[in-house]
Amino acid sequence: MARPGTEELRRRNRAALLEQLHRHGPQTRAELTEALGLNRSTIATIATDLAESGHIQETTGRSTGSAGRPSTLVECVPKAESVAAVEIRADRVRFALFGLGGEVLERAESPLLTGVEGPAAAEAAAALVGGSGAEAVAAVPGLVDAGAVAHSTELGWTGRDVAADLAAATSREWRVVDTATAAAVGEWSRGDAHDATRLLYLHGGRGLTAGLVVEGRAQRGGSIQLGHIVVEPGGLACACGLRGCLEAEMEAFGYAEDIESATAAAGMGDAAARDGLRRSGEDLGRALGAVVTATGPDEILFGGWLRELYLSAAAPVRSALAETTLPHLRSRLRLRTPVLGEEGPLIGAAETGFAALIDRMR
Amino acid sequence: MARPGTEELRRRNRAALLEQLHRHGPQTRAELTEALGLNRSTIATIATDLAESGHIQETTGRSTGSAGRPSTLVECVPKAESVAAVEIRADRVRFALFGLGGEVLERAESPLLTGVEGPAAAEAAAALVGGSGAEAVAAVPGLVDAGAVAHSTELGWTGRDVAADLAAATSREWRVVDTATAAAVGEWSRGDAHDATRLLYLHGGRGLTAGLVVEGRAQRGGSIQLGHIVVEPGGLACACGLRGCLEAEMEAFGYAEDIESATAAAGMGDAAARDGLRRSGEDLGRALGAVVTATGPDEILFGGWLRELYLSAAAPVRSALAETTLPHLRSRLRLRTPVLGEEGPLIGAAETGFAALIDRMR
Repeated sequence: MARPGTEELRRRNRAALLEQLHRHGPQTRAELTEALGLNRSTIATIATDLAESGHIQETTGRSTGSAGRPSTLVECVPKAESVAAVEIRADRVRFALFGLGGEVLERAESPLLTGVEGPAAAEAAAALVGGSGAEAVAAVPGLVDAGAVAHSTELGWTGRDVAADLAAATSREWRVVDTATAAAVGEWSRGDAHDATRLLYLHGGRGLTAGLVVEGRAQRGGSIQLGHIVVEPGGLACACGLRGCLEAEMEAFGYAEDIESATAAAGMGDAAARDGLRRSGEDLGRALGAVVTATGPDEILFGGWLRELYLSAAAPVRSALAETTLPHLRSRLRLRTPVLGEEGPLIGAAETGFAALIDRMR
Repeated sequence: MARPGTEELRRRNRAALLEQLHRHGPQTRAELTEALGLNRSTIATIATDLAESGHIQETTGRSTGSAGRPSTLVECVPKAESVAAVEIRADRVRFALFGLGGEVLERAESPLLTGVEGPAAAEAAAALVGGSGAEAVAAVPGLVDAGAVAHSTELGWTGRDVAADLAAATSREWRVVDTATAAAVGEWSRGDAHDATRLLYLHGGRGLTAGLVVEGRAQRGGSIQLGHIVVEPGGLACACGLRGCLEAEMEAFGYAEDIESATAAAGMGDAAARDGLRRSGEDLGRALGAVVTATGPDEILFGGWLRELYLSAAAPVRSALAETTLPHLRSRLRLRTPVLGEEGPLIGAAETGFAALIDRMR
């Protein structure tokens, strides 16, 4: 079988080295040699290339080895490449500019009026972002399909082409991912979920959404409207027009605004609060049973206000999940809470941009 | 940006041309030029290469144009590359050897005893397949994960490493896909579902499974135990240990053996049969609501005995689906029956092998 040309190999190796430093931070040449499976002279050539193009620098850093001799570390130059990430919420737009290696170079946010429409939200994002970043990525809470928000309980949008709104406001291209998927990418890249092959992130905002990422990458069709899994056929009317949706049955809006009060009251022995949490946990576990059967994740992270719900109602969530999921699917499944908190969606949106940026270098 | 080397481009183009002929059948050089976006001299060079390696041949074929002058057609040489496909069922193993272009070169089957174990099924497959085919692919009904059958209602297997059993019996490597996923790949490649981006195929055998393929390719995690979506919490006991599974609620085993009698009786006005079909359709529609919400397909095919159920109970399936799926997800969803019948899983298993074989040529 023929081998790829020399220049192509060199390009691929450059991208691989940059990705390695971007993901894992400063390393010695010896560590890079080991991690990438390339020989020392190839690493030296690539490092020279990347230093010349301004992407990396070598610094004398930490002491290693028994002699305590300081070794030279290779690291990204943060400003060499950057990605603009925004998160659109019901009440505000958050922005951060991330440099190579994941450092935050700039940060800003601006309030949004309740019930804001797509173009107005895009204008607010445009004012924050301007032309910054080689890639621009927006995280939006809802069902995202090919750049458009098909349904968002949180924003009250249906069929809103956010990518087009953002492009019109900024005269540049945007990637749009749903907030749950962005948070999943974030937790996989910079959180504590790197071992998960199929990671399902649950996002509790004003609506309940989920994002499935496979090996850290957002998937087409991975944006899941968890809140609209019907857990009670013919049950309570939901704002979406269906009946018995998880969101409606959990009275999600009440919790979204004040999960802390509910968990505090339950902690104080309030029977109604305890019962509400238990039943909500059961409903959530049952909805998850269907999602797990259909998508086969190996890790689930409970994010947003679902974190508090899970911490207070882990037992009912787990028992309802156990009653609705085959043993094989349960046996490999870890349930956990995310570690990046509110930063997850922005970090993940940025990592989605960096993945595209590094792919283009190959 | 640097361009790939000449030899690599040539290799890619050869693979693209072969894939085009494999998928779409004999074509003129002018049609190939058009389809692949390459110029005539490039097509001529590749065609010469592939003719020399024995993969294609040129024949004087059909008349085209107003003058009725016969034009030269480029076509695959079926025996140049072949893939061995087997389908393991509860009662038999089916085998077909497919040549390039999709032609069946050999076909055979042998009975299996009820309750057969993995190694015995693998021995039966080995006797049929021998060393034939450059790739060997098995379709197995159940939840397939990394070559192993985690759960199969139809075969009664749990945690059976079929890929290892087949490898041990034949001294070669095997790919294993679940039957529903294989059938989905078949319908996408050689059936009538090529327009579907995310195709969900439902397979009714002794158990109910589903396979999700994206742009015709089997997905890791795309093997879905449809029969074990819980549609009735706390409902009927299922053989898997859960309660209220779709399979248990539909009394799937009875239908699997005799759906024709049930639909015939309903057609004759038997009220109990009609009621059973309606309720089964509703249960199926509700289970699908959850699967559609979690996976976002744009087409669903009702295969195996679910074809008959759907043809007799389309209205309750559709109404239950409408009650459990967001309008956006429904609006782009087509419900249909497959066109390849019993051949779907074998054809799809073979196409999975050809996809791997052609990928290796790139």
